[in-house]
Amino acid sequence: MKLSSLQLARYQYQPKLPGMLRNGISEICVKVGEPTQSVADQEKIQALFPNTYGKNEITFQKGANTSEAKKQVVGVILSGGQAPGGHNVICGLYDALKATNKENILYGFKGGPSGLLEDSYVIFDDAYINSYRNTGGFDIIGSGRTKLETEEQFAVVAEVCKKHGITAIVIIGGDDSNTNAAVLAEYFAAHNTGVQVIGCPKTIDGDLKNEDIECSFGFDTATKTYAEIVGNIERDANSAKKYWHFVKVMGRSASHVALETALQTQPNICLIGEEVAAKKMSLAQITDYIADSVAARAAKGWNFGVAIIPEGIVEFVPEFSVLIAEINELLAGNKADAFNALPTWEDKYAFIKAGLTEASMAVFEILPQAIQQQLFLERDPHGNVQVSLIESEKLFSAMVKENLAARKKAGTYNGKFSPLHHFLGYEGRCAFPSNFDADYCYSLGYNAFMLIQYGFNGYLSKVSNLSKPAEEWVAGGMPITKMMNIERRHGHDKPVIRKALVELDGKPFKFFESKREEWAVETCYVYPGAIQYFGPAEVCDLTTRTLALEKA
Amino acid sequence: MKLSSLQLARYQYQPKLPGMLRNGISEICVKVGEPTQSVADQEKIQALFPNTYGKNEITFQKGANTSEAKKQVVGVILSGGQAPGGHNVICGLYDALKATNKENILYGFKGGPSGLLEDSYVIFDDAYINSYRNTGGFDIIGSGRTKLETEEQFAVVAEVCKKHGITAIVIIGGDDSNTNAAVLAEYFAAHNTGVQVIGCPKTIDGDLKNEDIECSFGFDTATKTYAEIVGNIERDANSAKKYWHFVKVMGRSASHVALETALQTQPNICLIGEEVAAKKMSLAQITDYIADSVAARAAKGWNFGVAIIPEGIVEFVPEFSVLIAEINELLAGNKADAFNALPTWEDKYAFIKAGLTEASMAVFEILPQAIQQQLFLERDPHGNVQVSLIESEKLFSAMVKENLAARKKAGTYNGKFSPLHHFLGYEGRCAFPSNFDADYCYSLGYNAFMLIQYGFNGYLSKVSNLSKPAEEWVAGGMPITKMMNIERRHGHDKPVIRKALVELDGKPFKFFESKREEWAVETCYVYPGAIQYFGPAEVCDLTTRTLALEKA
Repeated sequence: MKLSSLQLARYQYQPKLPGMLRNGISEICVKVGEPTQSVADQEKIQALFPNTYGKNEITFQKGANTSEAKKQVVGVILSGGQAPGGHNVICGLYDALKATNKENILYGFKGGPSGLLEDSYVIFDDAYINSYRNTGGFDIIGSGRTKLETEEQFAVVAEVCKKHGITAIVIIGGDDSNTNAAVLAEYFAAHNTGVQVIGCPKTIDGDLKNEDIECSFGFDTATKTYAEIVGNIERDANSAKKYWHFVKVMGRSASHVALETALQTQPNICLIGEEVAAKKMSLAQITDYIADSVAARAAKGWNFGVAIIPEGIVEFVPEFSVLIAEINELLAGNKADAFNALPTWEDKYAFIKAGLTEASMAVFEILPQAIQQQLFLERDPHGNVQVSLIESEKLFSAMVKENLAARKKAGTYNGKFSPLHHFLGYEGRCAFPSNFDADYCYSLGYNAFMLIQYGFNGYLSKVSNLSKPAEEWVAGGMPITKMMNIERRHGHDKPVIRKALVELDGKPFKFFESKREEWAVETCYVYPGAIQYFGPAEVCDLTTRTLALEKA
Repeated sequence: MKLSSLQLARYQYQPKLPGMLRNGISEICVKVGEPTQSVADQEKIQALFPNTYGKNEITFQKGANTSEAKKQVVGVILSGGQAPGGHNVICGLYDALKATNKENILYGFKGGPSGLLEDSYVIFDDAYINSYRNTGGFDIIGSGRTKLETEEQFAVVAEVCKKHGITAIVIIGGDDSNTNAAVLAEYFAAHNTGVQVIGCPKTIDGDLKNEDIECSFGFDTATKTYAEIVGNIERDANSAKKYWHFVKVMGRSASHVALETALQTQPNICLIGEEVAAKKMSLAQITDYIADSVAARAAKGWNFGVAIIPEGIVEFVPEFSVLIAEINELLAGNKADAFNALPTWEDKYAFIKAGLTEASMAVFEILPQAIQQQLFLERDPHGNVQVSLIESEKLFSAMVKENLAARKKAGTYNGKFSPLHHFLGYEGRCAFPSNFDADYCYSLGYNAFMLIQYGFNGYLSKVSNLSKPAEEWVAGGMPITKMMNIERRHGHDKPVIRKALVELDGKPFKFFESKREEWAVETCYVYPGAIQYFGPAEVCDLTTRTLALEKA
């Protein structure tokens, strides 16, 4: 098998642990902190988690290891979308497990949670682990999107654990997966299975973040990769001086990725879904906002620019959501048949006009024709509009184009507008983890084993103080129930970890807000370049601007 | 102005010069080589370049500098598309110029060749130059696509040179720009202007390459950037195991970028335009070739893969070119009016069917409807099909989808096929130059000044032996006329530098050919990761696989 020279070099990298985990397994002891309460709905959460609620926060510190000598057999799964550093969580877990007792065993269940249900696994050994150290991807055991949430599934998992003598499961996943980890932990406790569950916070989206989780792993590397590419595109725009680049970035439910990428690269425009929703912005307003920048720059002779558009942006536009709901209603069930039978687009258009409210028709009318047609012609098996297929970067560039044409007629704009489009998502989810993510993930895994070894259940592996050098990081554990509240999901009250949206009064957004007017009109691009692994610490080891601002 | 930490660190990088240029300006002398002949059409080229034809190749070596003491006033332009390292050519040129004589002056003409015609310039000083060292982009003075090729333009350039006392012009560009540099050099010589012209070989496309130019600058960095991204996508494909990624890469007239990216990443499929043309492959054949890989992998349970598609691929398919020519003919002039008046696509389709030959209609019929419509609906102001707008990555994935549906019916395929699409171009043209490109470009610029100082005209700055460490590189100059032949362009015989296509009997293609059957069916992905600037030499300093194979 051929390996890249970088991969070979990265095998040699020794991830940095938090200071209190650096003295060897025999010198790690527990410092018990305060008992915890869930962030909201305490009584309901407590009722749902009678065995795992209210436990104490803990941190590790230097001191004689007092854990029980016991052979540990641990299973680990990767859940959901790829995030750089997942391999290192497993490597850290493995190293701590083997350093504690060579007889300990680590199972990797394949293809995500379904591997646990189907008892599909590998048993890790040194050679296997060594070929994944400090690498990107989830190819070590694969991942999957099956959700572990029903009692039936838990019973199967308990059986599998019993079969292999598994003493603990580590679940590496996002907010839903960690929510489910807490439920599984409670199930195991209630059924006296003796199996512990530990979660690790993963997602490039950055929306698994709260008082206890400073950031989810992968966010640093993914946004650095997107920022590298956006910076390259900015430099190209500023060299060629003739294109406007509309760059869509991943992030359907929160705009952290867009915001962080913007903080690193200072583009002319960056839309933030949470702001669009809070201010109830219309498509026309957003379009006008972008077109203002295009026109102001054109007036300076700069017919180029860069705009970052979060993937899920249109779903944050209230009037657009109403339009989608009306379309879904208009074509529900066999009503679609009459529509589909209409021979021409003009006939269909008349049908639509007759069926939509005036307000929604006004929104529909300002959409470019290609998007109009997409809304009606590409529907899912239930007849619903596939909002996720809407190419928001193309939607806005087309609307800006029309807006500028109107300005040209009115004599208020006299530039050229040539848009180009990009989508950044898959490009960053499997990059080699940055030193930060390599260190953080290795620490999360190492720490997860210490939580197992000390008998904790339903805890999240917690490493904090991340804006400081790794030596100063704090390792410990937090009951997952502490992060939970009750939310309405699919018509049911459900205990979940609250998803972290971009806070409009938070420091990262406030900083962006204070700068964006200048960025829109001037050329303030910053070119971060490719992620570096070997150079000066200020180039290689700093984490996100988001975290730096939050901790400033 | 905010600068990234990488940009600040890269300012400190000292590019490596070829050994013979390392002893200081006073210790560089000329070793005169053989007189040269053009690669073909010698008599015609000689007749067109009476003053600059047949000059000797030269190399530099260590020895007392015997050049005439003379104040040099040099002008430099960047021509055409961005390529990483352009800034370093100018930095090297500036450093050699100032090291020779502090009174020497370097003008940078802005926005490409038009800056020279419009006398729009900056005069470089240390502070200006220092803020662009080892950075990507052409934003130092901008670039442009105006062609310097007429006598009228040359007369204007001569005037501008006279006005500023310019003694030499350095043109940093691709094959056309260097062809024009040779013509300008001849003009200057014939008119006794005393102004010299030196060319530098730039293009990320890799098609400016011949016996004398081992590679054009920027190709290394751009392909490493694309390989980084393709590697990340491969790792994502191999983790998620559910998508086929179709990645289009830049390169309209040659497939060097696609080939190099494939050599670095070992995808399942990489199309090479030159092969498609040589074997007169049909769209159906290409589609079948890709679908074979999809089906073979699906049979192993692998419903994922990565295919690299060169941007210009459809233009290499003979039957497709015929189809385009027929469509252009079918809608030429006012014939388009009748077509445009037809109310529905069905009517238009009947019109098309009646107008195309049977062979072209057969090709047309296998195209996905979206592409069919694009061919007829999106035409340029002359009524011609805009072939460059055709999204070849989507064309092939749609055709593969249909092909697989037929196989499924026939019972020969039973997988899932979910394609995703990417286009990589602007992402790599302005990356921070790799150490190789930083060194190579700085050397090209430094060397260009030495050619000026020694009085050469119509020469290309030549640095060779590039697959070896920089210490062993060979610096010198080659008359541009040596690389020329006569080609038919726009109905006229023209002396031009021959464009280098991928050679199907060359070592890079042969190597690829020997491996691709395995790559198509197995998962042999290589993950190069981000360009590194500070690490071990084997990670940071190696240039392309193409060059390594060519020099092996």
